[in-house]
Amino acid sequence: MNHKFSKFPTKAGRRSLSRSISQSSTDSYSSAASYTDSSDDETSPRDKAQVNTHGSSDFCVKNIKQAEFGRREIEIAEQDMSALISLRKRAQGEKPLAGAKIVGCTHITAQTAVLIETLVALGAQCRWTACNIYSTQNEVAAALAETGVPVFAWKGESEDDFWWCIDRCVNTEGWQANMILDDGGDLTHWVYKKYPSVFKKVRGIVEESVTGVHRLYQLSKAGKLCVPAMNVNDSVTKQKFDNLYCCRESILDGLKRTTDIMFGGKQVVVCGYGEVGKGCCTALKALGAIVCITEIDPICALQACMDGFRVVKLSEVIRQMDVVITCTGNKNVVTREQLDRMKNGCIVCNMGHSNTEIDVASLRSPELTWERVRSQVDHIIWPDGKRVVLLAEGRLLNLSCSTVPTFVLSITATTQALALIELFNAPEGRYKQDVYLLPKKMDEYVASLHLPNFDAHLTELSDEQAKYMGLNKNGPFKPNYYR
Amino acid sequence: MNHKFSKFPTKAGRRSLSRSISQSSTDSYSSAASYTDSSDDETSPRDKAQVNTHGSSDFCVKNIKQAEFGRREIEIAEQDMSALISLRKRAQGEKPLAGAKIVGCTHITAQTAVLIETLVALGAQCRWTACNIYSTQNEVAAALAETGVPVFAWKGESEDDFWWCIDRCVNTEGWQANMILDDGGDLTHWVYKKYPSVFKKVRGIVEESVTGVHRLYQLSKAGKLCVPAMNVNDSVTKQKFDNLYCCRESILDGLKRTTDIMFGGKQVVVCGYGEVGKGCCTALKALGAIVCITEIDPICALQACMDGFRVVKLSEVIRQMDVVITCTGNKNVVTREQLDRMKNGCIVCNMGHSNTEIDVASLRSPELTWERVRSQVDHIIWPDGKRVVLLAEGRLLNLSCSTVPTFVLSITATTQALALIELFNAPEGRYKQDVYLLPKKMDEYVASLHLPNFDAHLTELSDEQAKYMGLNKNGPFKPNYYR
Amino acid sequence: MNHKFSKFPTKAGRRSLSRSISQSSTDSYSSAASYTDSSDDETSPRDKAQVNTHGSSDFCVKNIKQAEFGRREIEIAEQDMSALISLRKRAQGEKPLAGAKIVGCTHITAQTAVLIETLVALGAQCRWTACNIYSTQNEVAAALAETGVPVFAWKGESEDDFWWCIDRCVNTEGWQANMILDDGGDLTHWVYKKYPSVFKKVRGIVEESVTGVHRLYQLSKAGKLCVPAMNVNDSVTKQKFDNLYCCRESILDGLKRTTDIMFGGKQVVVCGYGEVGKGCCTALKALGAIVCITEIDPICALQACMDGFRVVKLSEVIRQMDVVITCTGNKNVVTREQLDRMKNGCIVCNMGHSNTEIDVASLRSPELTWERVRSQVDHIIWPDGKRVVLLAEGRLLNLSCSTVPTFVLSITATTQALALIELFNAPEGRYKQDVYLLPKKMDEYVASLHLPNFDAHLTELSDEQAKYMGLNKNGPFKPNYYR
Amino acid sequence: MNHKFSKFPTKAGRRSLSRSISQSSTDSYSSAASYTDSSDDETSPRDKAQVNTHGSSDFCVKNIKQAEFGRREIEIAEQDMSALISLRKRAQGEKPLAGAKIVGCTHITAQTAVLIETLVALGAQCRWTACNIYSTQNEVAAALAETGVPVFAWKGESEDDFWWCIDRCVNTEGWQANMILDDGGDLTHWVYKKYPSVFKKVRGIVEESVTGVHRLYQLSKAGKLCVPAMNVNDSVTKQKFDNLYCCRESILDGLKRTTDIMFGGKQVVVCGYGEVGKGCCTALKALGAIVCITEIDPICALQACMDGFRVVKLSEVIRQMDVVITCTGNKNVVTREQLDRMKNGCIVCNMGHSNTEIDVASLRSPELTWERVRSQVDHIIWPDGKRVVLLAEGRLLNLSCSTVPTFVLSITATTQALALIELFNAPEGRYKQDVYLLPKKMDEYVASLHLPNFDAHLTELSDEQAKYMGLNKNGPFKPNYYR
Repeated sequence: MNHKFSKFPTKAGRRSLSRSISQSSTDSYSSAASYTDSSDDETSPRDKAQVNTHGSSDFCVKNIKQAEFGRREIEIAEQDMSALISLRKRAQGEKPLAGAKIVGCTHITAQTAVLIETLVALGAQCRWTACNIYSTQNEVAAALAETGVPVFAWKGESEDDFWWCIDRCVNTEGWQANMILDDGGDLTHWVYKKYPSVFKKVRGIVEESVTGVHRLYQLSKAGKLCVPAMNVNDSVTKQKFDNLYCCRESILDGLKRTTDIMFGGKQVVVCGYGEVGKGCCTALKALGAIVCITEIDPICALQACMDGFRVVKLSEVIRQMDVVITCTGNKNVVTREQLDRMKNGCIVCNMGHSNTEIDVASLRSPELTWERVRSQVDHIIWPDGKRVVLLAEGRLLNLSCSTVPTFVLSITATTQALALIELFNAPEGRYKQDVYLLPKKMDEYVASLHLPNFDAHLTELSDEQAKYMGLNKNGPFKPNYYR
Repeated sequence: MNHKFSKFPTKAGRRSLSRSISQSSTDSYSSAASYTDSSDDETSPRDKAQVNTHGSSDFCVKNIKQAEFGRREIEIAEQDMSALISLRKRAQGEKPLAGAKIVGCTHITAQTAVLIETLVALGAQCRWTACNIYSTQNEVAAALAETGVPVFAWKGESEDDFWWCIDRCVNTEGWQANMILDDGGDLTHWVYKKYPSVFKKVRGIVEESVTGVHRLYQLSKAGKLCVPAMNVNDSVTKQKFDNLYCCRESILDGLKRTTDIMFGGKQVVVCGYGEVGKGCCTALKALGAIVCITEIDPICALQACMDGFRVVKLSEVIRQMDVVITCTGNKNVVTREQLDRMKNGCIVCNMGHSNTEIDVASLRSPELTWERVRSQVDHIIWPDGKRVVLLAEGRLLNLSCSTVPTFVLSITATTQALALIELFNAPEGRYKQDVYLLPKKMDEYVASLHLPNFDAHLTELSDEQAKYMGLNKNGPFKPNYYR
Repeated sequence: MNHKFSKFPTKAGRRSLSRSISQSSTDSYSSAASYTDSSDDETSPRDKAQVNTHGSSDFCVKNIKQAEFGRREIEIAEQDMSALISLRKRAQGEKPLAGAKIVGCTHITAQTAVLIETLVALGAQCRWTACNIYSTQNEVAAALAETGVPVFAWKGESEDDFWWCIDRCVNTEGWQANMILDDGGDLTHWVYKKYPSVFKKVRGIVEESVTGVHRLYQLSKAGKLCVPAMNVNDSVTKQKFDNLYCCRESILDGLKRTTDIMFGGKQVVVCGYGEVGKGCCTALKALGAIVCITEIDPICALQACMDGFRVVKLSEVIRQMDVVITCTGNKNVVTREQLDRMKNGCIVCNMGHSNTEIDVASLRSPELTWERVRSQVDHIIWPDGKRVVLLAEGRLLNLSCSTVPTFVLSITATTQALALIELFNAPEGRYKQDVYLLPKKMDEYVASLHLPNFDAHLTELSDEQAKYMGLNKNGPFKPNYYR
Repeated sequence: MNHKFSKFPTKAGRRSLSRSISQSSTDSYSSAASYTDSSDDETSPRDKAQVNTHGSSDFCVKNIKQAEFGRREIEIAEQDMSALISLRKRAQGEKPLAGAKIVGCTHITAQTAVLIETLVALGAQCRWTACNIYSTQNEVAAALAETGVPVFAWKGESEDDFWWCIDRCVNTEGWQANMILDDGGDLTHWVYKKYPSVFKKVRGIVEESVTGVHRLYQLSKAGKLCVPAMNVNDSVTKQKFDNLYCCRESILDGLKRTTDIMFGGKQVVVCGYGEVGKGCCTALKALGAIVCITEIDPICALQACMDGFRVVKLSEVIRQMDVVITCTGNKNVVTREQLDRMKNGCIVCNMGHSNTEIDVASLRSPELTWERVRSQVDHIIWPDGKRVVLLAEGRLLNLSCSTVPTFVLSITATTQALALIELFNAPEGRYKQDVYLLPKKMDEYVASLHLPNFDAHLTELSDEQAKYMGLNKNGPFKPNYYR
């Protein structure tokens, strides 16, 4: 069970499975979190009367006076989110979201603010709430509220607060949402449960997280999905960046910030050679670690061989390893028995999607001593003095102990914006009451909006070449099944 | 137009598009080719009366007396094709191909011989012919004929010989094929045209090549496909190995053998960042070349950026490049205008799938002088003395100028064997008259048969883990859309 | 001029040139610093009366009660300094430092404590002070004092405190040093100036820093060096680890912790391709950055070419760069004019050995606005709004913004211990009044003591092989000029 | 004992130790060798009367009529030797070798011809002979003779021919050498023995090979060296290029051309982690091989650890290895006992400097069968059928089975030219009767002449910077002990 959420046994607990929590997990070392004032007063925002400088009080944030600080964070984020800025410019003339009334439930961070303000620039009206009780950057929420976006969110909500905020977003007089942007499915769930009639006007749901997408597919199977939904979690650009490339960068960062380990010469076993594992292995090998992998799937195992990694069973190598990293998505991949056999000082951490890959529960037993040596770092001490170094209590290392580059979040946010535009403007009948992947052409458009960051110059097909390939000159260039 | 095949304007010409031609392209530096005696007599094999030591004359090869030499080549190939050998062992007891009568049309090489003899060991009867007029290893054909496989093929067939050989395989008294293994679709085409009634007994077609698969899909669309067909060209293991990994190895080999170029510090542009381009870029960068890429597809372009390659237009960089490599599958990717702007000594070659990526035709003009400096290496000399080094006349470098490791061919051959077993044994109704991809589970089985080569040890799911993941413990582990 | 030390115009300022300052620079993100209590009382340690639990008051630290915390830090450091621990074991029987009276002046950190306690275990008596007014870990100093080592050091000394502490180490009744371990040369300088007669008994000086070594060579040239000195700064193991390998790790860490930058696709120019530059380039390229370099030396430039980096002049590329890193050891490598031409958001930092590689002084002018956005991160804002991101005010990034792995410090500390043993035990006449490099055989011994960390198994020469190579079986294997 | 030279038991045999033999080893796959007509008449060149088109007969080559073919080879080589061409241009005005009479004894290849013609262009008179009885490219020798350089060399000389040719170069009426360029020391030896008075006029010897340099140092130690000698073998640029970079390229090439091995996933052990080993390991790891190393020297072993290679004893891993590569310079590194324990199909080869690293002699025993499967490839077959694949009979793989890029030879040739210029023009007294390394500044000049090949742009020090660093603006930038 995820430690952090143990107070919230049901949905809130499941939310922690969502990959996107990473964006602003507040017990991270994220710099963004560092400016959050810790000396805040203890009054609940629900009990405060606040008004922004335009006279509006249709919001509920920690402290509207923090708006200026938050504005600067948003401006810094904008620098690495030029795709959204250019989307604002390209689409602004036509206001493709004119008439859209979007209710959103996501992490509320500077990056999200850039997204929201882009949606507004494209013509939409927005109301927003947080999908996680800890992840809100209060100053950013204040900055949004100050400019007139009704935001209902603060860091450290109770579960009751959480649902209250969602309700305030949806249930408001004289305004009814016609688009939903969700991350985790709680907003969607609430509307289904409390205000099913809202769906009569809703043109579509855009969902970002593994968990939320899973819920949508279940609704769809059960025949209960009553509007089209767009699964942006599985779009190519998001998958590749969040997994392969992002993990390539964050595995090193997460290990360094927590343990100051030197990578050169370290013996590392990576459990799982999917995209996440591939990213981890690439980075560690490049920095001089000696990496082997475990796999259940012979295809991935064969790729690992060709990429120069020995494929082993964990038990064969566990005694020699300096670092053990799980990236399987499975549970109990590292068992107590294997933890017992690790050598003194072995570092154990998890880059997969759940917090059960390492059997951490088995370590909470009387014969073992836990010693917290730093934030996110525990020494588990065996009776003979052996210490195993457990990071983030087995939760996701990259979410807990490293930062996610704004550039990666830009890709996700741009995808969300395009999905909203597509669903809102799609002609009647293009989308049924089902879950869709973003059309490949839009994936390609998201990618193309990010190329200027790299000063990359695309080649264009000549008419003759397009004809030869059977392609439209403007794409899509990949079949829909490409991933 | 592929130079080599220009005499055969229609189907035979198209055969050169097939990727699998690589396996034994005889104008390569392939060692296999080196032992082919060049002093052979000039009598056509069709005019010779030959008998093997068992008294059979149901074959037509160059010289049955070369059998012993061919046998040794087959034995050498077996050492790197342990997957097939282990398939022989695992499946031999039950003879899963007992009753199968397979007619095959592929390149005839030592590696193919290992496949054929595996099929025989599994219970099949086989008759075989060549899919390419140049690629037959005469000694191997002799060795097969000696052991009793009716083989009709020799190096240097005429087009008339080509169809005669196919006919002799299909049209034989007292034996009717019930399975087809094809590479390029010529055998299938011949049966459709001449002996359509054969299809009444045929349980399925296994097709290996891009071209052949394309023909099958066209038949299917036209409603004319009358038996199930298995597309092994697009199976995961084949794609990954033939493209990414195989090109990673062969780009270096092909360039070295032809030009003795030093890679360190060379400025290289790779056109196309698909799997082939990725393989080329990885290898060249690793050896110290400075690589940039061109792309039409923003998704691949973004991957290139993240992988550390500048994305440029060819015209922007063409003057500075030491090496230009095409991997697009498109045509006229390198134009005459760009060839005109290359610097003296620039090397130009093609790793894509056709021979039209470089506009070689434009170089055959009076103002330019061609000078053949080595096999597969031409200097094209401009009036001002500038020389451009063109490899393999723009045909596939890795097929023409490097070798394909037996290990890669083993993967393809194993996939073919499994596809034959699957189609032959499938219960009525599992496969309709359509084109199928190999079931993911079989892909995984092919991979697993190759893991012992690397002493790789797979991990097995526990019951609990399999349940948690919703997987069968024995796979498939990947969804069918995985690639 | 180094900003931090600007209050101390002379020697203390120069100390900042020393590479070894890195080990505990206290304005870093170093974990070690994090536990230093910030609520300390303001009384000067010189005014406190403190007694350890053994009744001794021959020390001066911040707070002797922090000893337990410091002990634990020492224990953690010991885990990665097994070479020193094994040195304790191997040499303990014979006590090679029995009779040695060592006065030391170094950074006082957990790692130094492991060294000091090793020296004691080998038979030495030690007195210790700090070579830097900021770098002392107070808890560690307390732990040393508690076990009976006379330590005179605390974090935040005044310059007067600094020299007072040195004096208290040297000038003590009934005890006279016969060995000096120095880092920066201040202790040596003090003894020369105040207590020259001490040198009558001193058998040698071991000096660790660039600055201190430079001073020793000057003394030697001037004929004023009156005892042998060992330059451990230039030993192979220290050079290779501190430069190539350590920078390979710390450049990524330093950039991530300060800017959360994504490396993939970033355009980076590294000024200088010596060992430091090579380490930076290797790491950045491996993580997907597109790296070019500048060089003045054609040999290094040619190496860069062969390693796959474009060699450019800074002015040619400055407009396109995302990151500019200096590693030259020279000054004004990045000029104001070049800073003016950088693009918005460009990150500028220094990995070389001084703080003048970037002309930071030129940025302190009225038309530019400085904005501190995080610790160690300044935005310099041009009148047109362009921001350049300056890290650590141009001081060494890896010392200021990343940590140095204990393993690297272990190599240095082991080298220091061996140099002390060598000088103390050398037969009369082996060393004159000159500056020596550590004998190659000792370098090799230091390396061999660290191999068990990697479970590395050395091969031994057979008698026959040793004879063939003209080598002693136990080394040295390298000529003395090897580096 | 080197197989090839076994007929020449003494000096000629030792010549095979010389690294530089690589340049034209004639049993290689070198393209250069391929055009040598094999149908030559059998008359000894010594018995032929030949005259070039200018009427001169002061030469002795295989066939003067091959001059045109040789000229084209020289022109092709010139394209990659632009450093020499630019040296011709820069120094031609002043003719720095005017008056020099150079007698040379080197491999005679197209690359050497570019060197010789450069020396002539700079004012020298040259007479030339071959340092190896097999390595002469007859056509190139003819081309040189045609332009008036007295060349005495052909492919396939007898030992008597060998010394006759040397004698004809030295002992000629009306011409006495004042400079010697030697490769292996045979020419120097001959002059010492037969014409010691020649040394009265000789201003210096330039020696290229390990063996020749070794002889010179012995002469020097014995007090018998009577002129200055320049050791160009140990210059930085030559060492780095011939070892690290050249081996990085040639290990892959040598293995591919002989065995067509796929590198991905192969288990490889490299014996020795000096520059050669580092080059091999870098390339193999980059292509997906799993590499471990053996070392006797703890410093190199520690570098291997940090670079991500396991350090093992050969016996620990020998059973699992797919490839064994020696790079130690030592003998019997791979013993018969270890060969006995290799697995079936294991490839064994040598990249070090002698042919005794693998105990090949021990394999020439009755119980083992040798089977030559290709040029340079032997299968050694154990009684149980196990085959070990031995390349080049244990001689240097990169010399026997791959090619050396002209660019690398250009560096060596340029260094030789500069050494000749330096010695010829040095003021009286600069060089004594001793062996010298090329001054660092000249090393740097050699490097700088090769930078244009890479379009590399050097940065120049400002006056202020040069002063700060204590350097001359034009170099040298490295201390003389740098390597």
